[in-house]
Amino acid sequence: MSIDQARLHRALNPASVVVIGDKAPNYGWLRRQAEFHGPVYSVQVDPKEIEAIERLGFTNYTSLDDVPGDIDLAICAVPRQVAPRIVAAAAARGVAGMAMFTSGFAETGEPEAIDMQRQIVEIAASSGMPIVGPNCLGIYNRRIGLKFSDDQEAGEGGTVSVAGQSGTNTSGLIAGMQRAAVKVARGISFGNAAVVNEADYLQYFAGDPLTEVIVMYIEGVRDGRRFFDLLRTVTPRKPVILWRGGRSEAGARAVASHTASLASSTAIWEAMLRQTGAIGVGSMDEAVDVAAALVHTDRPTGRRIALIGMNGGQSVALTDQFSEQGFDVPPLSEASYEYLAKFFVAVGSSYRNPFDASSTIRREDDNLAKILQVIADDGAIDGGVAIELGARDLDKDPAELDGILALLDGFRKRTGQPVVALMHDNGGGSGGVEAMLRARRHVADQGFAVFPSYERGAVALGRVVASNEARAETP
Amino acid sequence: MSIDQARLHRALNPASVVVIGDKAPNYGWLRRQAEFHGPVYSVQVDPKEIEAIERLGFTNYTSLDDVPGDIDLAICAVPRQVAPRIVAAAAARGVAGMAMFTSGFAETGEPEAIDMQRQIVEIAASSGMPIVGPNCLGIYNRRIGLKFSDDQEAGEGGTVSVAGQSGTNTSGLIAGMQRAAVKVARGISFGNAAVVNEADYLQYFAGDPLTEVIVMYIEGVRDGRRFFDLLRTVTPRKPVILWRGGRSEAGARAVASHTASLASSTAIWEAMLRQTGAIGVGSMDEAVDVAAALVHTDRPTGRRIALIGMNGGQSVALTDQFSEQGFDVPPLSEASYEYLAKFFVAVGSSYRNPFDASSTIRREDDNLAKILQVIADDGAIDGGVAIELGARDLDKDPAELDGILALLDGFRKRTGQPVVALMHDNGGGSGGVEAMLRARRHVADQGFAVFPSYERGAVALGRVVASNEARAETP
Repeated sequence: MSIDQARLHRALNPASVVVIGDKAPNYGWLRRQAEFHGPVYSVQVDPKEIEAIERLGFTNYTSLDDVPGDIDLAICAVPRQVAPRIVAAAAARGVAGMAMFTSGFAETGEPEAIDMQRQIVEIAASSGMPIVGPNCLGIYNRRIGLKFSDDQEAGEGGTVSVAGQSGTNTSGLIAGMQRAAVKVARGISFGNAAVVNEADYLQYFAGDPLTEVIVMYIEGVRDGRRFFDLLRTVTPRKPVILWRGGRSEAGARAVASHTASLASSTAIWEAMLRQTGAIGVGSMDEAVDVAAALVHTDRPTGRRIALIGMNGGQSVALTDQFSEQGFDVPPLSEASYEYLAKFFVAVGSSYRNPFDASSTIRREDDNLAKILQVIADDGAIDGGVAIELGARDLDKDPAELDGILALLDGFRKRTGQPVVALMHDNGGGSGGVEAMLRARRHVADQGFAVFPSYERGAVALGRVVASNEARAETP
Repeated sequence: MSIDQARLHRALNPASVVVIGDKAPNYGWLRRQAEFHGPVYSVQVDPKEIEAIERLGFTNYTSLDDVPGDIDLAICAVPRQVAPRIVAAAAARGVAGMAMFTSGFAETGEPEAIDMQRQIVEIAASSGMPIVGPNCLGIYNRRIGLKFSDDQEAGEGGTVSVAGQSGTNTSGLIAGMQRAAVKVARGISFGNAAVVNEADYLQYFAGDPLTEVIVMYIEGVRDGRRFFDLLRTVTPRKPVILWRGGRSEAGARAVASHTASLASSTAIWEAMLRQTGAIGVGSMDEAVDVAAALVHTDRPTGRRIALIGMNGGQSVALTDQFSEQGFDVPPLSEASYEYLAKFFVAVGSSYRNPFDASSTIRREDDNLAKILQVIADDGAIDGGVAIELGARDLDKDPAELDGILALLDGFRKRTGQPVVALMHDNGGGSGGVEAMLRARRHVADQGFAVFPSYERGAVALGRVVASNEARAETP
C-alpha cells in the first residue's frame, strides 16, 4: 500500500498516545512513557488491570471511542486474536497511526495467523492508517520522550535515526549509540513491516530535517526497486548504514521465522550497496562504530594518517590495524623530525609516525601541542590523528585527560581533519575496565569518536572515508 | 648464542630475586614482588633511594657481591650507561639470569647505543648468563607470585604461557586473559631479544610441563629456520597462537624503532603458519579470544553447531556470524521438531535451529534441559552449542544463571562438544554494561568461553576448530 507520509509523521511525532491492552506485571508500555511530552491514556477492559493501571496514575477508558481529543499514536499490546478488531476500531476512531507490539502473525507460518495479518493490512489500506509492525517494539522519539525501552534517553538533540526489523537489534543499536554519546533522534522497530515497510521509513528519514545519518537493520526488502531508487537519492545527502540480517542460508531460514521476511541474495545486496553508496555493515558493533565515526568527525576523505601510541607496542598495533584498513602512515619531513628531536629526548620513544609518545607527553609541558602542530603543518598528513588515550586516568586526574582533549579539539578545528580516540580495555589506568568505561564515555561526551579496540576504530574510520570518497565521485 | 635452558629455567622460576637500581617515586620493581614466594633484595648505591627502600621493608646492598646466597634472577632497572657494568658484575657474581628493564639500546638506532647492546650480549655469551630483554618488562610467574605488572594474579593453576616483544602488548594479553578467567602460568616480555630470543622461549615452553597453550607476540624472528622447526614439532602437542606486529610497511618501520626488529615478509609468515599449524592472529583481542576458546573447550572439530538466541534478532545475528566463520547451522530431524513443538508454545518463538528461545526458557520449567537433550540426541549437531546469555541478570537472580550454566556443563560433559557463551554489551539485563562485565566474568569463572560479541565468539571458535582440523591431518 502507499503510505500517507503526513499521517506517518503524526504517528512518529505524536502529541498524544493511547496504550491499548497493557497488562500486569509491568505495565511497561504505559510506564515507559513517563517522560512523554503529552497525555498518555490507557484502553483496557479487564477490571483487574484497570484498577492497577489507575493506581499507577493513568486514566483508563474501556473503549477507544471514549478517549478525548485527537489520537496521534495508538500502541497496541492486545492478544493477537483480538488484534484485527482493535485495528478496525482504531481506524474508525481516526487514530493517526499505530505501533503494534502484538506478535504471532505471518512470522509463525500458520495459515490462520497469516490470515489475521492479511486482515490487519486490509484495514490499514482501506483506512489509510499506517501501522508500525506488527511483531515489533514500535517508536522511540528522543525529543518528545516517547520510548520502547527503559534505557532510552529523552532530551534535546540527536541527528541519527535508526529503523530495524528486530526489536532487540534496534534497541541494541540505540543503546550502543547512546554509550558512544551518539544521540539518536528517532528509533523505529518495525518487525513484520506488513503495512509500513523499510522503503517508507527510508523515505521518511530522507525528508526528515532532524535526521542526518540513517541506520537500518534489514532482514528482507519488500519493494527492492523502490528501496534501491530511494537509497540512490538519499546517500549523496545523508549517509545510510545498512546492517543486513539473514546473510547466510541458515540465517535466511531464521529471518523467515523471525519477521516472515524473504532474505535477498548476497549478490543483489552487494550490488545495491556498490551502486547506491550505502555503507554495508555486518554487526551491531560495526553499525554503532560507523555511526559514531560519522557523527563525531567532519566527513573525512584523507587516508594519510598520524598515529600516536603511548608506547611502542601500541604504536605498532595501531599502525598494523590502520594500514590493514587502507590508511597510509607516512613519514614526515626532515624539518619536522629535526624539530621533534628537540623534545623527544626520552630514550626509546619514537616520532617518525607512528609516534611512541610514552614519556614525552606530560601535563607540565606542551609537547602534545607541539606534536599536533607539526602534524598539522607538515603537509604529509590529510587523514587526521588516531591516538591511544587509555592510560590517562579519568578518576585520578580528570584535568589531564581534559587538557589532552582540548588540544585534540583544537587540532580538528584548525585542520578540519578527524581525531579518533582509542581506549582499549587493556590500555591502562589503575581502575580496571569499569574506570575505562567511564573514561571512554567521558571522551565520547566531549564529541570524540572513541573505540575499545584499534581494529574497530580503524574499520569504522575506513568505512567512513570510503563512503565519503564514493559520495564525492557521485556526479 | 646458544642458551643454557637449565639456567633459563632457574631465572624464570627463581627462588630469590634481586632488584638492581629501583628508584623513586614508585619503587615498582620491588613493590610488585609483594606476593613473591622467596626473598627479594635490593641493590642500590644512592643514599636517598636506599633510605626509602629500607623504609619500604627491603634489605638493600650497595653491591651485588654482598647479597647473600644464590641469586636466581636479577631484575635490572639501572640507567643504560651503567648497564654493561652491571651485567658484567652479575655474570661475575654467578647470577643465574637477568631480566633487563633498561632500554635505549639497539632500538634507538644510535651507534653508541647499539655498541652498548653489543657489549651486553658479549658478556652474556661469554658467561652463559641468559638475559631477558633489554627494553622489556621481564618475567611473570603466577605460581610463585613474580610479577611485572600490578594487576597480575598470583596463585595456583594456569596452563597458558605468553611471551611477547612488547611490554604493553604482553601485559595486555595477560590482563585480557585474566578477565576471561584464563589463568596464565608464565608471562615473558622480552623486548629486544638481544640474548634469549623468541625461539629460545618457544623451546622452553615446548618442554615446560606447566604450559599447554603458547601465545606469542612477535615483531621479528631472529632465527627463522630454528623458529620454524620448533613450531612444527610443538604444534601437534601444544597449540601456538602467534600475533605478529609490524605486518604493514609502516608497521615494519615502527617495529624497527620499537624493538630493533627486522619484520618478516607477510608471504613468509603466512607460509610458516600454514606449514606448522600455528594459529595466526592479528590483534590482542583475537589472541585472548582464541586462548579462551582453547582453554575452555575440549579441542572441538565439528562444525555443525546449534545456536540459541533469546529472541529472533539475536538468533539471526548469531546465525550470520557463525555461518560466515564456516559453521553449519543445520536443521534437526522431524522427530526432534515434533518433540520441540510440544513445549515451544509461545507465539513467535522458533526451534528449527537457530533457536529463538525467548519465552521458552524459564526458571520454573526444564525446557532448556529438553532443548539440550534434543541437540545432543538428534545426530545433526557435532559442533556444540553457542548460546546468548546476556539477558540473565546475575545481580538480581544469580541462581537462574547458575542453573543454566549447570545444564550447559552437563551438555558438554555428556557430548564432549563445546559450549560457547555470548554476552553482548547490549544484550540485556538491567544493570547496564558494568553488570554485564560482572556476569561475563562469572560465566568465565565457571569454565566457559564467553565473548562480548557474536563475531568474536564465532571467529575464536572457528580458529580453534580449523587448528584442530589441521592438527588432526598432521601425520
